[in-house]
Amino acid sequence: MQHTAAVLAVGDELTLGQSLDTNSRHLSARLLDLGLTPIEHATVPDDLDQLVGAMRRLAGIADVVLITGGLGPTADDLTRRALAEATGDELIEDAEARAHIEGWYAGRAAKMPESNLVQALRPRRGRCLPNPHGTAPGLSASLGVGGRTVAIFALPGPPREMRPMLETHVLPALQPDASRTVRTRLLRVFGLGESDVAQRLGELMSRDRNPLVGTTASLGVVTVRMRYDGAGDGQAAERALDASEGAVREILGRHSIGPLDLPEAVLGALGERGETLAVAESCTGGMLAASITDLAGASRVFAGGFFTYSNAAKHAHLGVAESLFPERGGSDAPGAVSAECALAMARGCLERGVLEWAGDRQRPTHTLSVTGIAGPDGGSSAKPVGTVWIARASSDGSAIARRFVLKGDRGTVRAWSVRAALSCLWAKLADADDLTLLREEERREA
Amino acid sequence: MQHTAAVLAVGDELTLGQSLDTNSRHLSARLLDLGLTPIEHATVPDDLDQLVGAMRRLAGIADVVLITGGLGPTADDLTRRALAEATGDELIEDAEARAHIEGWYAGRAAKMPESNLVQALRPRRGRCLPNPHGTAPGLSASLGVGGRTVAIFALPGPPREMRPMLETHVLPALQPDASRTVRTRLLRVFGLGESDVAQRLGELMSRDRNPLVGTTASLGVVTVRMRYDGAGDGQAAERALDASEGAVREILGRHSIGPLDLPEAVLGALGERGETLAVAESCTGGMLAASITDLAGASRVFAGGFFTYSNAAKHAHLGVAESLFPERGGSDAPGAVSAECALAMARGCLERGVLEWAGDRQRPTHTLSVTGIAGPDGGSSAKPVGTVWIARASSDGSAIARRFVLKGDRGTVRAWSVRAALSCLWAKLADADDLTLLREEERREA
Repeated sequence: MQHTAAVLAVGDELTLGQSLDTNSRHLSARLLDLGLTPIEHATVPDDLDQLVGAMRRLAGIADVVLITGGLGPTADDLTRRALAEATGDELIEDAEARAHIEGWYAGRAAKMPESNLVQALRPRRGRCLPNPHGTAPGLSASLGVGGRTVAIFALPGPPREMRPMLETHVLPALQPDASRTVRTRLLRVFGLGESDVAQRLGELMSRDRNPLVGTTASLGVVTVRMRYDGAGDGQAAERALDASEGAVREILGRHSIGPLDLPEAVLGALGERGETLAVAESCTGGMLAASITDLAGASRVFAGGFFTYSNAAKHAHLGVAESLFPERGGSDAPGAVSAECALAMARGCLERGVLEWAGDRQRPTHTLSVTGIAGPDGGSSAKPVGTVWIARASSDGSAIARRFVLKGDRGTVRAWSVRAALSCLWAKLADADDLTLLREEERREA
Repeated sequence: MQHTAAVLAVGDELTLGQSLDTNSRHLSARLLDLGLTPIEHATVPDDLDQLVGAMRRLAGIADVVLITGGLGPTADDLTRRALAEATGDELIEDAEARAHIEGWYAGRAAKMPESNLVQALRPRRGRCLPNPHGTAPGLSASLGVGGRTVAIFALPGPPREMRPMLETHVLPALQPDASRTVRTRLLRVFGLGESDVAQRLGELMSRDRNPLVGTTASLGVVTVRMRYDGAGDGQAAERALDASEGAVREILGRHSIGPLDLPEAVLGALGERGETLAVAESCTGGMLAASITDLAGASRVFAGGFFTYSNAAKHAHLGVAESLFPERGGSDAPGAVSAECALAMARGCLERGVLEWAGDRQRPTHTLSVTGIAGPDGGSSAKPVGTVWIARASSDGSAIARRFVLKGDRGTVRAWSVRAALSCLWAKLADADDLTLLREEERREA
């Protein structure tokens, strides 16, 4: 019976900060889905002693240890040897694994480098896990610690090899405690800061409550996390989570988006209504569109749009009047970062985003425009770096522009701008245009 | 004197896999820049005992411990208390920190939640680190372990608060060993796979060499990492790195891009020539433009472009003939994912991307188009998910379309497509259009 898990990522490129580890997050989320609680992540370099030490230490605190990386064919790949050493076993060649590796190269009419054969080795009492997507088999083994038997699984580092192996050979082999249920639920909140949310939730966030309620803030959205961990079956857990979610929703009212993050929530709401979105991006230059087209099914609601980074492009592609810009309209002209320009962009996108196809004309239902100063240069005292105007226009004739003053570096301002734009559309879809959004400083309805 | 560092990230949302930790990578990269070697990352939940345990354990193996997260105002933020407990100290209120927090709310004409005052607490023998970007001050303290004194710094979790604090208050306080020099250098390689690069480099990648040469592959670009770690000053290190880089460049020839990653390299090369780029994106829906506009200075070379996700948009915005698509051109029509469509998109973007401004007409120098099947649906046996056509057209009249067959999920196919498109432009800029790019399967010059 397994309650807890630990995750170990291996590689110099990770500890030295040259690559980003995304595997540990993925493994943890999948373990939690299964009812196991991940209690620690560790990352160690390609060093045999550190690897063996980390395997033993994590086996001492968790019932399952999942390892990623270090299974390649080169001299710096040491997970195989470390696993044999940690479990007090010797490495032997696995005949099936050898046949797989040889077949891999034969199927590609390529000569197998001799060094690849090291990937066929496994601890004598362990097992190889087949890898249809690469040459490195995974490994499983057991480690006895203080009377307990801890299962250890080692998976390849590349996510497209690791993820299918996790689903096929690791998760089905785990044995979560059937008498204990762990269930989580998320509720997204927009338009409020994290401490504001926490203050409103008050006693609901007490640390000895079950479900336990916590918050995390990221780019303008606060995520309220609820986690039930206790006896009983799934139904008891769901009832307890329903009650907690109901209490949170009642307190936060229209600030609650639901379980999905903003892009998914916006996509879903548009899809349900059969509505579409087109965008006109200046300082975010593609990020807003990408946040929607990241999602499968975006083609049903995303009507396309325009990157209009320069004033000339805003004029040429969206029809924004040249006179709005100081170089043509004089020093009193509102300029690119203004309510006037944002509204003209959103309205221009509504006009120019019309699609003609086989004689049919289809107009986007909603458009969003973003124009601002992402930095590092381009700011002034009147419009400091981080000043961003966002407008929404809709085919019902409504339009609104909101000014945000965002903090942080270029990447942060751009990422926040995308979330702020999605918030503006969400406000429309949720009949909440009267709410002040987080970091909004001024607005103009038109 | 400090040689080694360990990095600790704190938060249930991290261990449970609900959020991705990007701080540890950033901290490690900056520590390495300074000549300290990061030797382990750990991530623990919002649990006092685990936090105290991890602080003590990491202080036992490293000379510096950097912690991120757990400094918020809510009950699940425990880093402050854990640091006091680990260092055997008591928490007291810091008068300056309290004034900062009160001023933060006063400056925003907002009422300070009483709970925020917990952020003014520090271990009695520790120090607060000012945070101009949020309410949470950082903390620094010392921990004695086995006769050594280990410096511990706790920083807020949000990157835009953490990063400036790291630069201003943590890195300047560290004391790397002045007799030892650590310097790194990167060289990017396009058009070759990682094992191909490794095989060509041969003995240069031996593990007992200094500089140590390693490789990491990500989305079509192989990064060759060179790390000098030894006695002597910066000049000796640079000479050794120059020699290694020269050897690598000689072996890899035109496949070497230089130290910068593809978007920066493309931006720089266009800027030097005074040339511009416009894009027409289908399946990447904004990601290609975003990869360029992510960079400061993009406005000089990025001429804008079009998201044309649907066939109707490709026709309406780029002038792609309706007859190219089966719904109008019949079952023999090449369809959206074809050399014909990619070339028509790139050429349409060259025509339609012309900017008129005050009577002037300006045409983009180069355009890139991307059209493919990112999945999860939409594939067929003739065009499986991952099939992507990318075309480049230039104002010199040249144009080329290349077909890539990419593996992985929707996000991976999109991300690879962006890199493949940038590679196509790089090939033009480097007079290397004759090179076959990684995962390229077919091409058509026009």
